[in-house]
Amino acid sequence: MQRYFIDQTAAAGEQVEITGTSAHHIQRVMRAQVADQIEVVTAAHQAYYGTIENLTPTKVAVRLGTTLLTNTELPSQVVIACSIAKKDKADWIVQKGTELGASGFIFFASQYGIAKWEPQRQDKKLVRLRKIALEAARQAHRNLIPSVTIISGLAALTKVVKDYGIVAYEESAKQGETAALVATAQQVQAQQKLVAVFGPEGGLAPAEVAQLQAANFVAVGLGPRILRAETAPLYLLSALSTLWELR
Amino acid sequence: MQRYFIDQTAAAGEQVEITGTSAHHIQRVMRAQVADQIEVVTAAHQAYYGTIENLTPTKVAVRLGTTLLTNTELPSQVVIACSIAKKDKADWIVQKGTELGASGFIFFASQYGIAKWEPQRQDKKLVRLRKIALEAARQAHRNLIPSVTIISGLAALTKVVKDYGIVAYEESAKQGETAALVATAQQVQAQQKLVAVFGPEGGLAPAEVAQLQAANFVAVGLGPRILRAETAPLYLLSALSTLWELR
Repeated sequence: MQRYFIDQTAAAGEQVEITGTSAHHIQRVMRAQVADQIEVVTAAHQAYYGTIENLTPTKVAVRLGTTLLTNTELPSQVVIACSIAKKDKADWIVQKGTELGASGFIFFASQYGIAKWEPQRQDKKLVRLRKIALEAARQAHRNLIPSVTIISGLAALTKVVKDYGIVAYEESAKQGETAALVATAQQVQAQQKLVAVFGPEGGLAPAEVAQLQAANFVAVGLGPRILRAETAPLYLLSALSTLWELR
Repeated sequence: MQRYFIDQTAAAGEQVEITGTSAHHIQRVMRAQVADQIEVVTAAHQAYYGTIENLTPTKVAVRLGTTLLTNTELPSQVVIACSIAKKDKADWIVQKGTELGASGFIFFASQYGIAKWEPQRQDKKLVRLRKIALEAARQAHRNLIPSVTIISGLAALTKVVKDYGIVAYEESAKQGETAALVATAQQVQAQQKLVAVFGPEGGLAPAEVAQLQAANFVAVGLGPRILRAETAPLYLLSALSTLWELR
């Protein structure tokens, strides 16, 4: 069943309105009709079965039915902080990371990062990435749409509020470090926030890793193979799902 | 350090010849010179440090030095069997799956699969996918290049030699099945072969899942979120690395 997000809270039995691109999708892509069933997720991240009651070109009125009991969110929040990446790689990180349960994405400028997002184009990039996150959240049947932001650099990143922090560090993996990720994952409590930092293709500079470590980010290895910058966040999210959700 | 594969066995102290696209890469992309260091992986999947001794336009002579002790292979073989996918998705599965440690890829035709590979184009597709596997294996510093094959369909897939088999099944995940993957992963011994089957975007038909189950493939859930066809294999490989390599 197709899932749509609304930016208001509502309860079972109430009628809600779906507008914008979702209304377009329901009518033009799904060709839905009155009495068709969809899934609606409210701003409180609660999913409901919904029945379409009325369609106009720009609005779809839906009566909320019973709640969906399945929770598709990771038990803890995982924010993926990535060095600014080229367009297709950033798109891929946000799309796949959303499917795999990330609660948010932060892009930051790093020392060895080659890709640049011109200041005057950042807003456009964010609009695009947020649209990708919304579509991936719909498709993966998430209960929330991950946030996507840009911050100025590593100093700002060290100030992001978190319960735990990790930094994927190739040198850790090379030195055979294999226990830190599992150890950190086991400490994170439900609903707490883990911020995970990933460098660019050329890696983070040792001074950048030291700066993060001084701000309580733990250096972790992600196995013995060298992962590309856009693959490492997907490994992490899959690993956390395995450790937290598959028991 | 750059890594290259040769299709012969050799021992420390011997001189080997690198030809073909690798020779081109060493000279034209890396602009290497005599006395430069590279890594060489022999047909026995053993990696060595190597020193370039001679360069001609088509051949690079390398003296093998000490062996590299790091083993970058998963402790057991994991073969990813995917329903035939559209070009860019098949490319992604092979590239990312190689980075994440797959030992091979098998593409097969399935009931709900929409993508088709015309018989007369299959050889060309395999050449392309094998080249992607080779490049990803180099980049990820793998000790072997994953195989890429096409088989006729599910009946042939059930006859592939294996020690364990799993099939990613959305219905298992929907019913809250969360233990089967971890249980299977714990049974697989070092060097044994696990074949993991993934359906197309529309999923496998119930009869196809039953056919696989009759051939000792265990249905497993990959967490509560709905993953796209090209994301599920990457989740599985990351999960197995986490369970097998991060302790």
